[in-house]
Amino acid sequence: MTGTAEAGGRRRARRGGAREPAPARAVNYTRLRNPFPPMAVFSDDRIAAMHDTALRVLEDLGVRVLLPEGRALLRAAGAIVDEDSQTVRIGREIVAAALASAPRSITVRAARPDRDVILELGALNFQPGAGCPHATDLDRGRRPGSARDFRELIQITQAFDVLHLVPPLVEPQDVAPEIRHYFTMQTQLLQTDKVPFVYARGTPQVEESFEILRDFRGLGDADFHAAPHCYTIINTNSPRQIDIPMAQGLIDFARAGQVAIVTPFTLMGAMAPITVAGAITLSHAEALAAITLNQLARPGAPVLYGTFTSNVHMKSGAPALGTPEHFKASLAAGQLARLIGLPWRSATGSAANTNDAQAAHETQFALWGCLLAGATTVIHAAGWLEGGLSISYEKLITDLEALQMVAELCAATPCEDEDIGFDAIAEVAPGGHFFAAGQTMARYQTEFYEPLVADWSNYGTWAERGARDASDRATDIWKRIVAEDWRAPADPARIGAMAEDIARRTAAGGAPPES
Amino acid sequence: MTGTAEAGGRRRARRGGAREPAPARAVNYTRLRNPFPPMAVFSDDRIAAMHDTALRVLEDLGVRVLLPEGRALLRAAGAIVDEDSQTVRIGREIVAAALASAPRSITVRAARPDRDVILELGALNFQPGAGCPHATDLDRGRRPGSARDFRELIQITQAFDVLHLVPPLVEPQDVAPEIRHYFTMQTQLLQTDKVPFVYARGTPQVEESFEILRDFRGLGDADFHAAPHCYTIINTNSPRQIDIPMAQGLIDFARAGQVAIVTPFTLMGAMAPITVAGAITLSHAEALAAITLNQLARPGAPVLYGTFTSNVHMKSGAPALGTPEHFKASLAAGQLARLIGLPWRSATGSAANTNDAQAAHETQFALWGCLLAGATTVIHAAGWLEGGLSISYEKLITDLEALQMVAELCAATPCEDEDIGFDAIAEVAPGGHFFAAGQTMARYQTEFYEPLVADWSNYGTWAERGARDASDRATDIWKRIVAEDWRAPADPARIGAMAEDIARRTAAGGAPPES
Repeated sequence: MTGTAEAGGRRRARRGGAREPAPARAVNYTRLRNPFPPMAVFSDDRIAAMHDTALRVLEDLGVRVLLPEGRALLRAAGAIVDEDSQTVRIGREIVAAALASAPRSITVRAARPDRDVILELGALNFQPGAGCPHATDLDRGRRPGSARDFRELIQITQAFDVLHLVPPLVEPQDVAPEIRHYFTMQTQLLQTDKVPFVYARGTPQVEESFEILRDFRGLGDADFHAAPHCYTIINTNSPRQIDIPMAQGLIDFARAGQVAIVTPFTLMGAMAPITVAGAITLSHAEALAAITLNQLARPGAPVLYGTFTSNVHMKSGAPALGTPEHFKASLAAGQLARLIGLPWRSATGSAANTNDAQAAHETQFALWGCLLAGATTVIHAAGWLEGGLSISYEKLITDLEALQMVAELCAATPCEDEDIGFDAIAEVAPGGHFFAAGQTMARYQTEFYEPLVADWSNYGTWAERGARDASDRATDIWKRIVAEDWRAPADPARIGAMAEDIARRTAAGGAPPES
Repeated sequence: MTGTAEAGGRRRARRGGAREPAPARAVNYTRLRNPFPPMAVFSDDRIAAMHDTALRVLEDLGVRVLLPEGRALLRAAGAIVDEDSQTVRIGREIVAAALASAPRSITVRAARPDRDVILELGALNFQPGAGCPHATDLDRGRRPGSARDFRELIQITQAFDVLHLVPPLVEPQDVAPEIRHYFTMQTQLLQTDKVPFVYARGTPQVEESFEILRDFRGLGDADFHAAPHCYTIINTNSPRQIDIPMAQGLIDFARAGQVAIVTPFTLMGAMAPITVAGAITLSHAEALAAITLNQLARPGAPVLYGTFTSNVHMKSGAPALGTPEHFKASLAAGQLARLIGLPWRSATGSAANTNDAQAAHETQFALWGCLLAGATTVIHAAGWLEGGLSISYEKLITDLEALQMVAELCAATPCEDEDIGFDAIAEVAPGGHFFAAGQTMARYQTEFYEPLVADWSNYGTWAERGARDASDRATDIWKRIVAEDWRAPADPARIGAMAEDIARRTAAGGAPPES
C-alpha cells in the first residue's frame, strides 16, 4: 500500500513466535495486464450492427457541437454543419480517418518512470472515485468537499500502488473557482508522484495547468508536447451534444499532446435509450464524434475511447450502479472498443448511501463487468457512494482491498514441479498437517496475500477487540496515511518556484473556469 | 424472490403516478447456464502435470481409508492395501475406470419438475451457506444453531429461485443427534419443494432419511433408486484420509443412486501444501480416491467432483476465504474438472465476523472465482460468516442480491434492430431526455433488474427514512419471508403419514449418527 514500489505495499508477514524480522513479500501492483478472458454480451454481427447504427446516427442525425471552433474543424473535414441548430452531421469516412490516426498505445509520464501509465488494450489501470461534490467519513460526517478533503484523498491515493492515475476525488468547494486549478495542480504535484489530472474548464485554466505542470517537471514546451504528462475526462452531454468546455477540452488537450478520456455518461432510460444495446449505441456515436473532433485538432493525439453507462431506477429516476445492466453495458462497450482497436475506460461505482454490504456488492459487481470487458482503465474504482455524489474515506479503503486482490490475480502463479510438490505431500502423513512442513516453513512469510483491512481473527478475539467492522478498521488506515503526510521527492527550488508562480497568478485574479 | 416460478421473484415496477397495476417483469432464475468464459490459472501442460502427480500420490503414497468395507472394495478392484496402516494405494487404471463410469450429466429430482437440478459442466447452481454451528441476526444476536433457526433458514432458502439446492444451513443443536435427521428431513420436505440434503452420518440415519424421502414423494424403491432425489456432501479428512462416515456415505449414496458431492476441504498451509498448485493437487488426489470408492460401490452412481481450497492466515492459522489464493484454487480445480470431464462444485465464503464491506467483498470475490472456474454448483454462496462458523440472516439476504444479479447475466440480452433502436435515438433531440420516449414508455416496467435489498434513493430521502443500512433492510425481508410460513403443496395424507412414521421412529429411540 505504501507509495514506494520497493516496499511494495505490504506489512511484513510474521508468525506469532518469530523474533527476527521476516522478509517482506514482494508485490508489484504497477503495470498490470488484464488476465481475465474477455466476455461478450452480444454476437460479433450485432456489435457490427451497433457500430453501423452509431455511424448512421452521426451521418443522418448528427451531434450538436456548441463550440464554433469545434464546428469549424468538423466542417473543414467535410462534415455538414447546420449553424442554426449547431448540428454537425459527420460522414463515416471522417470518423474512419480519426480512428485510423488515434494511437493504439499511449504512455503517460509520471514523476518517475515506474509510475508511468501505459494505456493500450490489454493493460489494466485503476483510478479511485472522482468528481464528488461531497466527502464523508465516520468521524466528520458528510459535508461539501473542501481543500482539506481534496488533499487528504490525494494522500490516500498516493499510498496505494494499485491506484495508477490520480483523479480529483472531491471538488474543493471552499477554493474559489478562479484559483481552484492552482490548488489542485499544486496539491497533486507535491503529494503524489503519479499521473495527475487536469480539469477541462476552459482554455485559460487548462493552459495555466499545463504551464504549472511543465515547469514543475522541468520540461520545455517541446518535451511537454512530445509526450503526455496528464489527462482529463471529457463527458459528452448526452444525448448527442458536446458543450463548449468539453469541445474546447478535446481541442486543447489534443493540441498539447495530453490525454483526453472521452466518456459519454449515458444512463439508460434517462439520457439514453432504455435498452443496453441502444444506450451503448448512442454512447458509441457520441464517443466517435468526440474522438473525431479530438483527432481533427491534432491527428495522433492521445485519446481514449470510453463509456459510463448504467441504468436509472424507473420508479424514482435515481441512478443505479453496479446493476446487471451496468455490467452488460461495460461488456458491450468492450466489444466495440476491440472493434475499433482503441484503449478505453469503463467505470464501476455504487448508489448506496453508506459503506455497507450493498455498497461493496455494487462496486465489486461493476468492477467485474469492467474486468471481463477488458477495460484499459477502470475509473471510480474505489470510494464512490450515492452514484458519485459522495466519496467515502472508509469505502475508499475497503474497495482498495478488492482492487489489490484483483492485482494479485494479474501475477503469474508458480506451478513448477516444486510448487506442485509431490515430496511436500509425501512429507505429511494421512490426517496430519502442513503447518511445520518444510515447504510451508520455506514459504509461509511470502506465499499469501496479506490483507489490508480484512480481519480474519476468530469471533471471540474480534468481539474482545471491540467488534470493529471494516469501516472502523478503514478509519485507522486512512488516518495513518494522512498523518504520514508523504511528499513527492522534488527539487526545493521548483517547489518554491511553483508557490511563487501560483501566488503571482492568484494576485492577478486567477483565470475564469471557461473559455 | 418468491417460491413460484410464475411470480418470478419480482415486485412489480411502477412509476409514481401510475394507477393501474404494472405487468410483472418475468424472470427465470432456474436452470441457469454459466455464461462466463472459463479462466485458466495454469497452462494445460501444468494441469496435466498436476493430474499426473495426483495419480502418483494415489499409487505411491496412498490414502488411508478407515472403513474396512471401503478398503475391501478398493482391494477387490486391484488396489494395494496395507491393513496395519489402513493405507490403500490405488493404481491409475482403477481411477481411470471410475472416471469412465461416473456420469457426465445428472438430473436430481425435486418436488416438482421445474425445481429439478441439472448437474453437468456448463450448468450453474447455487446453494446457500451450509453446516454452520451458529446462527446470527441483528435482533437475536449470535447463538448456537437451533431447530427454529434451521426451519427459518430453510424458509428463506425456499423463497429465492436463485437458490437451487437446499443445504442444512445451520446445525439444529437443540435436537438430539439420534432424531435430528427426522427433524431435518421433515422440515425440508414440508417447507421446500427443492432438492433436499441428507447428511452422511452413518448407514442407519442415511437409510431412514432415504425412506422418509421416498415415502413422502410416493416413490417405490425402484423409482427412488432409478434417479437421484437428494444429495450429500462428502468431505475427506485432508491430507489423504477418508474417515468411516465419509467412506460409508460414498458407498451408501452410490448404492442408493443418490448424489454424493465429493469435497476435500484443503486449507493451504494447514491440511494441504502451502502452494495453490500443491493444495489443489492433493485435493484432486483425494477427490479421485473418493470418486473411485463411490464408483466401485456402484458404477455409474451420480457423483460430483469438488474442491474447497483456500488459505489460512499464516500469522494466526485462521482460515481465510475470498482471497486471491482461494480464487486461483477454484480456477485450477475447474481446469482439472474439465480435464476429467465431470460436473463439480466449488465454494465461496467469508471469514468476516459481521455483515460488513469485508464480508461482501470476500464472498463476491470468491464467487467470481467459482464463476470463472466454471463450477457446476457453487456452495456456501450466501450467508457465511466466520469461515462458516456462523450463518447470518442478513448476509444471506444481501448475498442473494449478488446471486440474482449474476443470474440476470445468464439471460440473453436483446439486441435486435428495435433494441439498438435508431428510431428511438432519433426521437430525442440533442440535450433532451428519454424518460418519455416511446421505447422507454413501452419498456420501463420490465427492462431492468428490480433490486431485492439495494436502496437507490438519494441521500436526503434515505437519511429521512432512518439511514438504514443493507443489514437493516435485509432484516425486514427475512422476517417477511419467515412470517409467510410457506408450505410445499403436498397430500395431507402423506404429511400425516410422515409425522406418524417419525413419531414411531422417535419413540423407538431414533438412530445413532454413525454406522
